[in-house]
Amino acid sequence: MTSSAAARPEAIRQHNLALVLSEVHRDGTLSRADLTARLGLSRSTIGALVAELTDLGLVEELVPTGGARAGRPSHVVSPHPEGPYAIAVDVDIAHVTTAAVGLSGVVLGRHVLALGPAASSPKAITRLIIDSIPLLQDMVRGGEPVGMAVSVPGTVDRRTGTVGFAPNLEWRNEPFGALLQSAARDLPVDVGNDADLAVLAEHSRGAGRDCDDLVYVIGRVGVGAGIIVNGRPLLGHDGHAGEIGHNVMDPSGPECHCGKHGCLETYIGDNALLTLAGVPTPTTDDKMHTVFAAARGGNPRALSAVRRIAESLGRGVAELVNVLNPDRVILGGTLSEVFDVAPADVLTAVERYAMDAPGQTVELSQPAFGEDSALMGAAEVAFARLLGDPLSWRPRRAAAAAR
Amino acid sequence: MTSSAAARPEAIRQHNLALVLSEVHRDGTLSRADLTARLGLSRSTIGALVAELTDLGLVEELVPTGGARAGRPSHVVSPHPEGPYAIAVDVDIAHVTTAAVGLSGVVLGRHVLALGPAASSPKAITRLIIDSIPLLQDMVRGGEPVGMAVSVPGTVDRRTGTVGFAPNLEWRNEPFGALLQSAARDLPVDVGNDADLAVLAEHSRGAGRDCDDLVYVIGRVGVGAGIIVNGRPLLGHDGHAGEIGHNVMDPSGPECHCGKHGCLETYIGDNALLTLAGVPTPTTDDKMHTVFAAARGGNPRALSAVRRIAESLGRGVAELVNVLNPDRVILGGTLSEVFDVAPADVLTAVERYAMDAPGQTVELSQPAFGEDSALMGAAEVAFARLLGDPLSWRPRRAAAAAR
Repeated sequence: MTSSAAARPEAIRQHNLALVLSEVHRDGTLSRADLTARLGLSRSTIGALVAELTDLGLVEELVPTGGARAGRPSHVVSPHPEGPYAIAVDVDIAHVTTAAVGLSGVVLGRHVLALGPAASSPKAITRLIIDSIPLLQDMVRGGEPVGMAVSVPGTVDRRTGTVGFAPNLEWRNEPFGALLQSAARDLPVDVGNDADLAVLAEHSRGAGRDCDDLVYVIGRVGVGAGIIVNGRPLLGHDGHAGEIGHNVMDPSGPECHCGKHGCLETYIGDNALLTLAGVPTPTTDDKMHTVFAAARGGNPRALSAVRRIAESLGRGVAELVNVLNPDRVILGGTLSEVFDVAPADVLTAVERYAMDAPGQTVELSQPAFGEDSALMGAAEVAFARLLGDPLSWRPRRAAAAAR
Repeated sequence: MTSSAAARPEAIRQHNLALVLSEVHRDGTLSRADLTARLGLSRSTIGALVAELTDLGLVEELVPTGGARAGRPSHVVSPHPEGPYAIAVDVDIAHVTTAAVGLSGVVLGRHVLALGPAASSPKAITRLIIDSIPLLQDMVRGGEPVGMAVSVPGTVDRRTGTVGFAPNLEWRNEPFGALLQSAARDLPVDVGNDADLAVLAEHSRGAGRDCDDLVYVIGRVGVGAGIIVNGRPLLGHDGHAGEIGHNVMDPSGPECHCGKHGCLETYIGDNALLTLAGVPTPTTDDKMHTVFAAARGGNPRALSAVRRIAESLGRGVAELVNVLNPDRVILGGTLSEVFDVAPADVLTAVERYAMDAPGQTVELSQPAFGEDSALMGAAEVAFARLLGDPLSWRPRRAAAAAR
């Protein structure tokens, strides 16, 4: 039975170390008193656990100086500035962002690499990512990478990291995880879908922290959803859940590159906005900024285009709300700006198309991490093993020194 | 910590009693050897647990007679025939089914009450249900009811049992759970959505036993879905998940009673089939049987009607598959017959409208419990507390005798 196993003292210690490190990771800086109160453990137990995490090089303790309050100030626990970091990667259509992310989600270094159309093969992107690692290391104060996780705008097999279909990268059945793992040698590599990673970050530490039933709708060139149900990721049987972009809104709608007509992506993807605004596709960041700036400035055609997208977005959200009855839906990517410019149009369509009960309780919000939700979610995945078992942390330098 | 709490001997005993009773409930009849193998407990522990469940009047043990195999035959454990039963109720548009269901899902007695249009108020249905309890008791060999659970074709607040919207019963915000509970006195009452209960039954003991990600699409007059994710029910924030019937398939489609156009229900609900087949609505069981019999017999109009429904059903299923990536989708109610008559049309549309990866792995199936999935799910809910804690079982007669 697991319950008797969990009662062994080492297992309890490991479990408690994981709890303390996870709390520090989630909030960044916590006093020993906070930890004592949150975890319901004694002050001396917390002290011993923090000391052990300090010895592992994972956290550091500082004594606040000064202050007019009476009594001894509680020690403050933070991630160690030279502790482990995650290599988080966000592969989008137009660029690849790589970042070194420390515990508590602090970005220690970041590169944004623009992609030419020729550079978007899995091999080329693998090389870009691997070559950026030394650059990231230069920007970091001395820690070591704990793992790498990569966000991809497509379906990803959760077991193998193979990308089944990333339409806007034109990838089909690409063994991207295996490619990356072979290039990254002994650094553990994970690959995930952008929306799945985005919702993970927002649920763990962002705009969905208090939600057990959460949806993150990401809209860039493609459209997808990351879903949390009962407090856990809904990945589906093979890791392909949330592929809403090619659900059909109207069978007599615009032709989609997938071969069908009227897919959600043709109504709320970036190219739909450009087309409605009279700007030639394909999309670029500059074009999108121009349209939103024009809409905010009151340009009638740009504003009308954003409002049309907002209305379709509201219907798309409503249909997810009917299926999932979430407490919150976070609108990410371009859709975050659509919601910012035309919130009433989104909300009116949600009200019109959602069933009364789930439509009345759902909240819509923008992501806490802005454009970085998927990147931060990748960092969460790269940190997951360490957070589950801090005793697994063996910096290579320390291992080398012990030889 | 829960792990230390779970290590107390009484807690372990309670946990193990629950495991044994749940296994017997799921499979009906198990040998002591089966139980020993499945639960990884010693033969003597299993013997003691079974003896305790026997003393509680929950199971009985029989020694198989005869047989040519060598060695002492293993005792066989079954639910006690005079043990507790659930009062399971399925409220549909045209009738209310009440049943006494014993452990392992054996139906000990059943009443089907036809509803006139005037009889479908929450009050009238509450009276019908309560009045059927003595009739059920007459059909039972001496056990006692453990609780009552009622399936309703509408949205149900999971906390209060209030029916938010049951369009085809014309109920809005009806405190049905409170009405029933007050009439049932000290018998615990639960109310659930039909599809949620159906998927629970099929997942626990039916066609989705081996699935962690399962959808049950129910189509009668209305259409809904019950969903299991990560092995647990997806009820949503307020219990309203799975309301797919009013998601719009085509904004220029037929007008729906909800005020929108082209809802899924207008394409695959019972009335859609009758209309396509040229039979006047509203639906009755007889009319539906006639249409399916004609389709099976090769009547062109009836067959074409069923095939049209099958195609729309396939698209509806595909769009759920894109969102949820389930391993299996069970088609229940009328849709089970649609799938039976025109499986290729359903599958072709799933292939056309689902994303490749999730579309390739999903299996479609008919419900193991036929028309009774929701009824059996209601029984599961009524049994849940007993199955979680068999020591809570206190038959009233025994309590009275002890006074």
